[in-house]
Amino acid sequence: MESLYVIKIGGNIVDNPALLTACLQSFAKVKGQAILVHGGGKLATSIADSMGVQQTMVDGRRITDEATLKIVTMVYAGYINKNIVAQLQAEGVNAIGLSGVDGNLILAHKRVHATIDYGWVGDIDMVNTDLLLQLLSKNSKLVIAPITHDGKGQLLNTNADTIAQSLATALALKYQVHLIYGFEKEGVLKDVNDSNSVVAQIDKQLYKKLKEEKIIFEGMIPKIDNAFSALEHGVQSVIIGKAEKMDELINGTAGTTITL
Amino acid sequence: MESLYVIKIGGNIVDNPALLTACLQSFAKVKGQAILVHGGGKLATSIADSMGVQQTMVDGRRITDEATLKIVTMVYAGYINKNIVAQLQAEGVNAIGLSGVDGNLILAHKRVHATIDYGWVGDIDMVNTDLLLQLLSKNSKLVIAPITHDGKGQLLNTNADTIAQSLATALALKYQVHLIYGFEKEGVLKDVNDSNSVVAQIDKQLYKKLKEEKIIFEGMIPKIDNAFSALEHGVQSVIIGKAEKMDELINGTAGTTITL
Repeated sequence: MESLYVIKIGGNIVDNPALLTACLQSFAKVKGQAILVHGGGKLATSIADSMGVQQTMVDGRRITDEATLKIVTMVYAGYINKNIVAQLQAEGVNAIGLSGVDGNLILAHKRVHATIDYGWVGDIDMVNTDLLLQLLSKNSKLVIAPITHDGKGQLLNTNADTIAQSLATALALKYQVHLIYGFEKEGVLKDVNDSNSVVAQIDKQLYKKLKEEKIIFEGMIPKIDNAFSALEHGVQSVIIGKAEKMDELINGTAGTTITL
Repeated sequence: MESLYVIKIGGNIVDNPALLTACLQSFAKVKGQAILVHGGGKLATSIADSMGVQQTMVDGRRITDEATLKIVTMVYAGYINKNIVAQLQAEGVNAIGLSGVDGNLILAHKRVHATIDYGWVGDIDMVNTDLLLQLLSKNSKLVIAPITHDGKGQLLNTNADTIAQSLATALALKYQVHLIYGFEKEGVLKDVNDSNSVVAQIDKQLYKKLKEEKIIFEGMIPKIDNAFSALEHGVQSVIIGKAEKMDELINGTAGTTITL
């Protein structure tokens, strides 16, 4: 099977032109098919500020009221997505930018939660694998904005990490999928204050131990839980590490690689 | 040859939810392939206002400085494009929304003008006909936002009427193309104050006469000049009329049909 890289980058890269350009150059160099999923929360927040739309975060999730949905749709699917695609085109990569709405790529439903109303936040029901395969077969690289829809005309703000995972697992039957999460840290660190203490490889057993020792805690736990879920659904490897080192993450020489 | 409808709708429809829904229902009913090109200037202006970004118009064209380019990219390629696609999906149409950047669909260059600096406004150099044919062959309806690029990473704000015309002429060799411009008026009116005085059909000879009689003047002249240019490049018919009557425009029972 051919390799496919699904790469997620977040706000710390998207909002920094120099880092973004370096990251896109790495993405452009990937041989064969690749999908980039981007966030863009910081820019959404600054646009919201300039429009006087107050933002509420609960556990790191954006409560998406009507005005905020409009802003994230504009920022993610418009500004960020099209700027990334234009930069990739300039690197000689014939990228196509899509949201989960386009071609019914990602169908979702409004999040149901016992106590918190997240507003127009979507949880994913289905990925249109046929469309992905069709577009990838034309040798295109895809750039995906984290906006989905419910099939009834409603747009939904959807977590970009989860989108990356859903696309990776949807394609795991057809490709050897490597799922890369670029974020602020070098990977899973043994010592949170020492960026040289990266744990290069984690399997289920070591994960259990690191959790018990509180080396892995808080925000890292759902990330790694999701990584194992992706691996159990056929993804070949999940790599998390510093987005600035995208070349090395792709080559497997930086970050933490998670395997079953 | 199969028929293809290229339909352009402007701000007066895009900014009115009830009119937009009716127009999209008409678009959804088109049998076979169709492309919708949308503007969205009014919404861009209101977002610019709320962000304190002053807008300058020269002869009805938006001077597109850096801040304005960001806004039109957000509004056209993000908010409007994705909302239209979501609504079409709800109508059972598997639409895909693209800008001219995606898949290098529309390559342009920054406008050169002797006296006016339009800023980041693009004039079209090339349409990627292969990509259009590939996407249309999968029976998709396409929704195009008027943002293009220069191939060097620069996004460009591009007139939606011109995009509709460029796409129509690019596809004229493969389809029998009908190009429809939906706007505020019923069509070309003999008496500008009487909406029942639509001239149903105009050819070159009649156009010359109507111009001499000052029945056609000002903003209508470039529209009709462009229509003739499209016809001379192989487009089958150009129809201009009230966007609210999209059904009848598609059926050819309203508006002004322009032929050679």
